[in-house]
Amino acid sequence: MGGQLKMLESCIFVIFGATGDLTHRKLMPALYRLYVRNELPKNFAVVGVARKDKTHDDFRQDVKKSMAEFLPKEKFDRLDKFLSGVFYYRNDFDTADSYAGLKKFLEDTDKKYRTAGNRIFYLATLPDKFEPIIKNLRKQKFLAKGKDHRLIIEKPFGDDLKSARKLNKIINTAFRENQIFRIDHYLGKEAVQNLFALRFANKIFEPAWGERNIENVQITLLENTGIGTRGGFYDRYGAIKDVMQNHMMQILSLIAMSPPKNFNPGEVKDSKVKVLREISIPKKNDIVIGQYRKGALKGSVDYKDEEGVAKDSRTETFAAIKFCINNERWKGVPFYLKTGKNLDRKLVQIIVYFRNTSLLSKFSGGIHPNALIIKLFPDEGIYLRMNIKTPGNNFEIENVSMDFCHSCLFVINTPEAYEKLLHDIFLGDPTLFTRWDEVEAAWKVIDPVIAKKKKIRLHYYSSGSPGPEAADRLVKKNGHHWGLEHM
Amino acid sequence: MGGQLKMLESCIFVIFGATGDLTHRKLMPALYRLYVRNELPKNFAVVGVARKDKTHDDFRQDVKKSMAEFLPKEKFDRLDKFLSGVFYYRNDFDTADSYAGLKKFLEDTDKKYRTAGNRIFYLATLPDKFEPIIKNLRKQKFLAKGKDHRLIIEKPFGDDLKSARKLNKIINTAFRENQIFRIDHYLGKEAVQNLFALRFANKIFEPAWGERNIENVQITLLENTGIGTRGGFYDRYGAIKDVMQNHMMQILSLIAMSPPKNFNPGEVKDSKVKVLREISIPKKNDIVIGQYRKGALKGSVDYKDEEGVAKDSRTETFAAIKFCINNERWKGVPFYLKTGKNLDRKLVQIIVYFRNTSLLSKFSGGIHPNALIIKLFPDEGIYLRMNIKTPGNNFEIENVSMDFCHSCLFVINTPEAYEKLLHDIFLGDPTLFTRWDEVEAAWKVIDPVIAKKKKIRLHYYSSGSPGPEAADRLVKKNGHHWGLEHM
Repeated sequence: MGGQLKMLESCIFVIFGATGDLTHRKLMPALYRLYVRNELPKNFAVVGVARKDKTHDDFRQDVKKSMAEFLPKEKFDRLDKFLSGVFYYRNDFDTADSYAGLKKFLEDTDKKYRTAGNRIFYLATLPDKFEPIIKNLRKQKFLAKGKDHRLIIEKPFGDDLKSARKLNKIINTAFRENQIFRIDHYLGKEAVQNLFALRFANKIFEPAWGERNIENVQITLLENTGIGTRGGFYDRYGAIKDVMQNHMMQILSLIAMSPPKNFNPGEVKDSKVKVLREISIPKKNDIVIGQYRKGALKGSVDYKDEEGVAKDSRTETFAAIKFCINNERWKGVPFYLKTGKNLDRKLVQIIVYFRNTSLLSKFSGGIHPNALIIKLFPDEGIYLRMNIKTPGNNFEIENVSMDFCHSCLFVINTPEAYEKLLHDIFLGDPTLFTRWDEVEAAWKVIDPVIAKKKKIRLHYYSSGSPGPEAADRLVKKNGHHWGLEHM
Repeated sequence: MGGQLKMLESCIFVIFGATGDLTHRKLMPALYRLYVRNELPKNFAVVGVARKDKTHDDFRQDVKKSMAEFLPKEKFDRLDKFLSGVFYYRNDFDTADSYAGLKKFLEDTDKKYRTAGNRIFYLATLPDKFEPIIKNLRKQKFLAKGKDHRLIIEKPFGDDLKSARKLNKIINTAFRENQIFRIDHYLGKEAVQNLFALRFANKIFEPAWGERNIENVQITLLENTGIGTRGGFYDRYGAIKDVMQNHMMQILSLIAMSPPKNFNPGEVKDSKVKVLREISIPKKNDIVIGQYRKGALKGSVDYKDEEGVAKDSRTETFAAIKFCINNERWKGVPFYLKTGKNLDRKLVQIIVYFRNTSLLSKFSGGIHPNALIIKLFPDEGIYLRMNIKTPGNNFEIENVSMDFCHSCLFVINTPEAYEKLLHDIFLGDPTLFTRWDEVEAAWKVIDPVIAKKKKIRLHYYSSGSPGPEAADRLVKKNGHHWGLEHM
């Protein structure tokens, strides 16, 4: 997307939080794979920044170890060459003093790697470090005029509308909106991007795309693991802020948006923002929240007994919400969002259920609604479930799944989402990143939900179960049911 | 289809033209396979009628031989049992005298087989015998009151509107419209029936079904053989009357019809007739006709040198016509019909080309339009060709074919079209048969085309070629091209 874009020719890629999980699991593997495919800027170096004391070689050894773990199928014949351009710098994010040395180090690296003063800053730290890092980058004059600077920031972007606005203000003192890449790795997934192509590169689905033909939409993000070591953070946040405000709202807006006037990134985002603003605030009884307890899942404990969680916590680890969109296209069509931890399966998928036709009313039982199914996990793929005639002498209808032959390719040929997203950042293509007004619009929906959360029942569910039954009642009262795996 | 229908319990199946190709290739194999599956009426006998002198056993031996040829994979463990209920009666169709004996024979068979005086008459003769047979059935009182009588009649139904009306009048002296089954075996094909399910048992395609989203429709019926021994008949008829007036118009009406008010056969036919009546008469330069000459095709001769063909014949063995439909839904959408003999391939398919979207205009070259492809020959199947995103870091679009998993089943589990159609006749379901007003509406389109044929150029083409180039110009002038095999 994005018309005539030009690959960045040179830069230093500075990772704040270089010893963390994200750096090791995703960023370094993605950068290496881009390197192998010659898709990095020509003049390029990586500088990892974190608090721990480490030499460049320590860091390279760490990276080497984690690469072997997270890229098990990769050949590493060019890894040493790649790592020779990877450096480590010790820095205490909160302390102004340590930035001067970092600045000097980057300038020295510039000379060695001809990176011309251009910088990409990746904030892979805990969110409470975003502010001090950005303030220091500005104060310590990291951002020389005439140079190319880009900021990559991970979720969460604030923890409510107010704090998000505050954070954004701080970022804007140092970076312009078009230099900011708010990353949401779900948007890097092939199948999510294909949703865009399916809707707008075809005249097949778009004419059906609305309340006349669509019965309901389901966005499901189920996990069969708990909160791990994130207790402190998670307990303050909960499922709704953790994944609904960002990933799930992004997917919702991709499904619900109207066709943009053209396919420039700005117009695409305008269209997404418009529909986010048209989401109605859910009523209390359209919200179901739950919290896991010890259960069949191996090693599970009551959520309240997790490390870092308050003993009287009411934080939800499960949420199912019916959203409606207040426009002509989607009038009366429920968008059901469901997410949870410690459930009976790990499954991420989007289902668009088409309405049944009057022809189908002739056939009793066994007729499933038609559906477009976009699977993101465990496997990635897009399926169309359609009613066709059963072969034979009677006119009977059966439901078959067609899968895009394409989905076979996903397995062998899909770049990891982070590769795609980093590539787009080098290219300067904002299409797959969240613009500020998208963040703002999503918080405007989520903030009132969070406010209502306090007044509704928290359903406890057993770890390893499908979640609270109240979530089933939520859809059943509209005559719907949750679609599980349909393949 | 057709709601609460009841299988006929008893009847004699009388085939006029029992020594002909149709009887041996299609009817007897279809009846046997229905027999094996217990899908024939409970009390049932077959009486073949023709001019040749034969004993019952002669006829049974003939049938046995042709079955082995045309059902090569069939187990014949129940064939002798089936044949014990098959009889032969010599009858000169034109001579009133011979009918009395036939009538007596049928009545005797009634007693033996408890077939209760019910009759299905299948006219598998040359069309010039339709009249005398029907007249005699009436005059000789074959059609006793209170009994169940059905008439099955093969194409051609008349050779213009006038003669069709005359024939229909004669039939109506003996049979009511709901007793008449005008057979068009294309409508018995699984893939054609699936077209109906695809459109009306789904909310996926129907919203796109019209001029806003469909660029053009192509119905193609290509043969790589000549007229065989049908010279005398064919030369009087030509390609347009031979297949366009019936098969191709039927398919066109299935594609173009509006959704019926309900799915009772009557409503379905009303909707088909309506759209047939809305077809505009093609202009002279929207009609291309051709005639084959000797060519690369083995054994081919100039059409004029075929047996039974006039030396100065202008009869078309090829036709390509652009039809338009004068209603809101199809305004400006060409329906291209193309058929021919002695061409470079045998191929029967329907292609619905969707319009390109503005998103696609970003991508130069290589982008094919989306299409729904219904293949009838060589293999039967339904495919959807869609634009989706190419896997990888760039947003490129590629065109993939999805096939309905279903199509795999066609091969092993498809009843031959005639089985399906005979089954529907026993059931009394008229859905897949051509009602009189459909025949009439089709002739009203075809008659003026035939009249214009005399005033336009006849293009000669070499046997084994793709047909005259003028057919390509016909579509190119609208920016289209003929779709060939897209799988």
